[in-house]
Amino acid sequence: MGGNSFGTLFKLTTFGESHGSAIGGIIDGCPAGLQLDLEKIRGAMARRKPGQSILTTQRQEADEFEILSGVFEGKTLGTPLAFIIRNQDYKPSDYETVKTVFRPSHADYTYHVKYGHRDHRGGGRSSARETAARVFAGAVAMQFLEQAGIQIQAYVSQVGPHKLAIPYTELDLSTIESTAVRCPDLRMAETMSDYISKLKAEGDTTGGVITCILKQIPPGLGEPVFDKFQADLAKACMSINAAHAFDYGSGFDAASMKGSEHNDVFEKDMHGKVITKK
Amino acid sequence: MGGNSFGTLFKLTTFGESHGSAIGGIIDGCPAGLQLDLEKIRGAMARRKPGQSILTTQRQEADEFEILSGVFEGKTLGTPLAFIIRNQDYKPSDYETVKTVFRPSHADYTYHVKYGHRDHRGGGRSSARETAARVFAGAVAMQFLEQAGIQIQAYVSQVGPHKLAIPYTELDLSTIESTAVRCPDLRMAETMSDYISKLKAEGDTTGGVITCILKQIPPGLGEPVFDKFQADLAKACMSINAAHAFDYGSGFDAASMKGSEHNDVFEKDMHGKVITKK
Amino acid sequence: MGGNSFGTLFKLTTFGESHGSAIGGIIDGCPAGLQLDLEKIRGAMARRKPGQSILTTQRQEADEFEILSGVFEGKTLGTPLAFIIRNQDYKPSDYETVKTVFRPSHADYTYHVKYGHRDHRGGGRSSARETAARVFAGAVAMQFLEQAGIQIQAYVSQVGPHKLAIPYTELDLSTIESTAVRCPDLRMAETMSDYISKLKAEGDTTGGVITCILKQIPPGLGEPVFDKFQADLAKACMSINAAHAFDYGSGFDAASMKGSEHNDVFEKDMHGKVITKK
Amino acid sequence: MGGNSFGTLFKLTTFGESHGSAIGGIIDGCPAGLQLDLEKIRGAMARRKPGQSILTTQRQEADEFEILSGVFEGKTLGTPLAFIIRNQDYKPSDYETVKTVFRPSHADYTYHVKYGHRDHRGGGRSSARETAARVFAGAVAMQFLEQAGIQIQAYVSQVGPHKLAIPYTELDLSTIESTAVRCPDLRMAETMSDYISKLKAEGDTTGGVITCILKQIPPGLGEPVFDKFQADLAKACMSINAAHAFDYGSGFDAASMKGSEHNDVFEKDMHGKVITKK
Repeated sequence: MGGNSFGTLFKLTTFGESHGSAIGGIIDGCPAGLQLDLEKIRGAMARRKPGQSILTTQRQEADEFEILSGVFEGKTLGTPLAFIIRNQDYKPSDYETVKTVFRPSHADYTYHVKYGHRDHRGGGRSSARETAARVFAGAVAMQFLEQAGIQIQAYVSQVGPHKLAIPYTELDLSTIESTAVRCPDLRMAETMSDYISKLKAEGDTTGGVITCILKQIPPGLGEPVFDKFQADLAKACMSINAAHAFDYGSGFDAASMKGSEHNDVFEKDMHGKVITKK
Repeated sequence: MGGNSFGTLFKLTTFGESHGSAIGGIIDGCPAGLQLDLEKIRGAMARRKPGQSILTTQRQEADEFEILSGVFEGKTLGTPLAFIIRNQDYKPSDYETVKTVFRPSHADYTYHVKYGHRDHRGGGRSSARETAARVFAGAVAMQFLEQAGIQIQAYVSQVGPHKLAIPYTELDLSTIESTAVRCPDLRMAETMSDYISKLKAEGDTTGGVITCILKQIPPGLGEPVFDKFQADLAKACMSINAAHAFDYGSGFDAASMKGSEHNDVFEKDMHGKVITKK
Repeated sequence: MGGNSFGTLFKLTTFGESHGSAIGGIIDGCPAGLQLDLEKIRGAMARRKPGQSILTTQRQEADEFEILSGVFEGKTLGTPLAFIIRNQDYKPSDYETVKTVFRPSHADYTYHVKYGHRDHRGGGRSSARETAARVFAGAVAMQFLEQAGIQIQAYVSQVGPHKLAIPYTELDLSTIESTAVRCPDLRMAETMSDYISKLKAEGDTTGGVITCILKQIPPGLGEPVFDKFQADLAKACMSINAAHAFDYGSGFDAASMKGSEHNDVFEKDMHGKVITKK
Repeated sequence: MGGNSFGTLFKLTTFGESHGSAIGGIIDGCPAGLQLDLEKIRGAMARRKPGQSILTTQRQEADEFEILSGVFEGKTLGTPLAFIIRNQDYKPSDYETVKTVFRPSHADYTYHVKYGHRDHRGGGRSSARETAARVFAGAVAMQFLEQAGIQIQAYVSQVGPHKLAIPYTELDLSTIESTAVRCPDLRMAETMSDYISKLKAEGDTTGGVITCILKQIPPGLGEPVFDKFQADLAKACMSINAAHAFDYGSGFDAASMKGSEHNDVFEKDMHGKVITKK
């Protein structure tokens, strides 16, 4: 039984091994009539692309995509939008050595047990390269959400022991993309970069935290009781390779708070709109 | 909301407009370790291919497929098996005349109302070309089913007024492929071919009936109460372009039968296996 | 894996064995704010109820339902609408004799093989009693569809060899409920009833055909390519106990028709609305 | 569109408002032949039941369940297992005052916007009472998992600022149930209880953390890439009322760890079984 689809109304199904001929996916349910800005998709793909700075993996991939269906005369048709991204950095010999090795903290062993037959080249299906298809679909979804006024911005808020303590409301989120590490606090971004470089020189890696800010989300998204908005977000995030934790709103901090501190009281703003008290 | 997936354990999601760059699909849930015989898939694709005889549409397509994922060293990985079939017979100018015409008994008008924006070239997503992706996936499924001893054979049993009255048990099903019209009774096959040729000369077309024989189906396939085996088969068949009816077992003939005529009595064969009385 | 749910936006999940304590179901996705007319639901349940005439099974059931959730102050909440129907005609001793018998053309043997452990009393889950839950949910759905102007009417058009040849457009569908056999042609209704009575006296039963007329269906219902409207209808109908065939529109008659006879040509009516030529 | 189902092979659909006549659910996909221990289910329900100690809500509910289907002669049938739990503590007048009030940090306002019509009595569908149905289904699932040797134990590891720092491997998990607050460290349990009692006297509440230990989980559970085991767990947990965070394995601690510290190296134990190095 496969688990390679996500979503209901806007459903993404992905495919691809890291060293097969291509990765990609099908978006089923993208509304018709959306004027697709390919440059924005390219921008999102470029942002994810490996090998951009010395801080990331050095795999070289152009990550150029081809849209095979679902778009006609620049606009979505409401039919399945299929896309493929060819793999370029394919040197099978590189991976002969790992054929009989289960890398620590990777899915190699799990795939071996689960499927019997596996593509051992660079993780195969379990490679983080799989996320390129998510990025593509996300870039399409983003264009739809933008029309609805919804804003989504994410930044790196922790790298190893270096944690950005400033709340997002006091950060200039427009600077996120200007740093290699995508942290909107320039001083902290430098600290993080230095830390990663140092670890890299030692042949080591680090963990981190990404903070994502959603604005103009209308009330009532998600479906009770199992498909709550935060539940679907949690599933989406925890399905990304190496994700170990998810929090929402006050997150784990809520554990040590009193109800009286934690509660959001409803009130009306000057226009009569219901908001939570600040 | 999309409807481009079929199946649960072995789930096919398809994409593609008839005159876009490609059609294809993703099979999610194909078991790992299946030695895939590409020749058998090519055979199935060739069997469906338009332009094979004067009896069918004259569209020219090589219908060569490319498998992008899910297969490694000739065997399925258990991961999504993605495949694409490039469209070749793409002459946009051919279709300029139908841009503002809703062809009778086609989905043009329905797509226009449903999606607003549509690919008017040859039906777009509603083209019967879409079934090529089903044929590919069916050819993969067939290889899996063959391992389980299940046999599936289909033939044309009616074309226009010409109906093959001989029960399948008295036909030589190995001759199905030897006639252009795929009818295992050679005399009837000729009658059918002549009828189609005559209609074609008149600029007309005809309806028909396909009979499909399933052998060695184990008891208990399907899931009560909504996903019964015959219910899923009916959905699959009725989702094919231009399908108007489905029957199963005694079908509509059951309406005029008495229970005493219709009932299958269980008995044991000489090996003690439960069978229905002949 | 269960198959006891049907539908996506308006999803019905049913439960219940024929001689367990109750049958029922949950409707998930019924829109909020629907003023529910319980009398209409009672009417639909009464219409299905066994023991109404000498023509049907003599099982006695009040088929009173209880709504457990999803309705508040007479209106639906948008939350799951759960309902139960208690089984009354429960005499376990009646069924001791069938404990070790697989009735012909019933699912007893299939359940035995599939599940190992089965409720042998009157078919258990495979009993046609299961359809009472479908009738309840259908009666709720009908109230929603009525608001959208959609009309659905069904009648018996064939019983054994007796077939109603008059097209529905020439029948007075308001008379359907006035006959025990639910045929809107009174003379044919009598013929059908007599035939059933005669067979019953002989300890036999008969097949039949139900014709269902849908009016005011907006274009664009269903989802291409697998979840076409007719495909979902076919699945729904073929999942009903003992259903053997489904046809839609011209149905099997289309097989013997020429394209030129069969095609629906689009034209505009006097109000400029697109219709198919009569 | 409803979101009241969870799971695929073992699928739970729940229903019920906190002050409607009943809550409950249907389990579709429970394997046949499971000897159901009702006492264990009663134990799980009793464990969840409100009003057990002065630390929890004082609502009085017997939480007796009735199984309506899916079980015959003490064993599951493989058919849907429906269960209901009647609501007893139903005093509508209690809630007249909240009819026009949106309680802070509750879903009242969201339901109002989403559905228009809502059951304002004690939260209706958004009440934490809904979790009783999850507990019932979990208690059935647990009996199935126990047969497979899988062990699941959960305890309270933090209440407000009081955090149990001892790793689970050094705790006696058999003592979990012996404290009102379900913390296996008796001293900490007392501290937690005192803290809650103090807050309660002040009319306040607190947050907390639950730690859940899974043992004997076979490799390969879950489905890549979206339905990973941890992703489905995250969704399940985050769909519980008031849940704000989920972590798995090293969780948020992984953010500050180096790869070299974090990685699990595979090795073989003395029996040749692949394990992760301790």
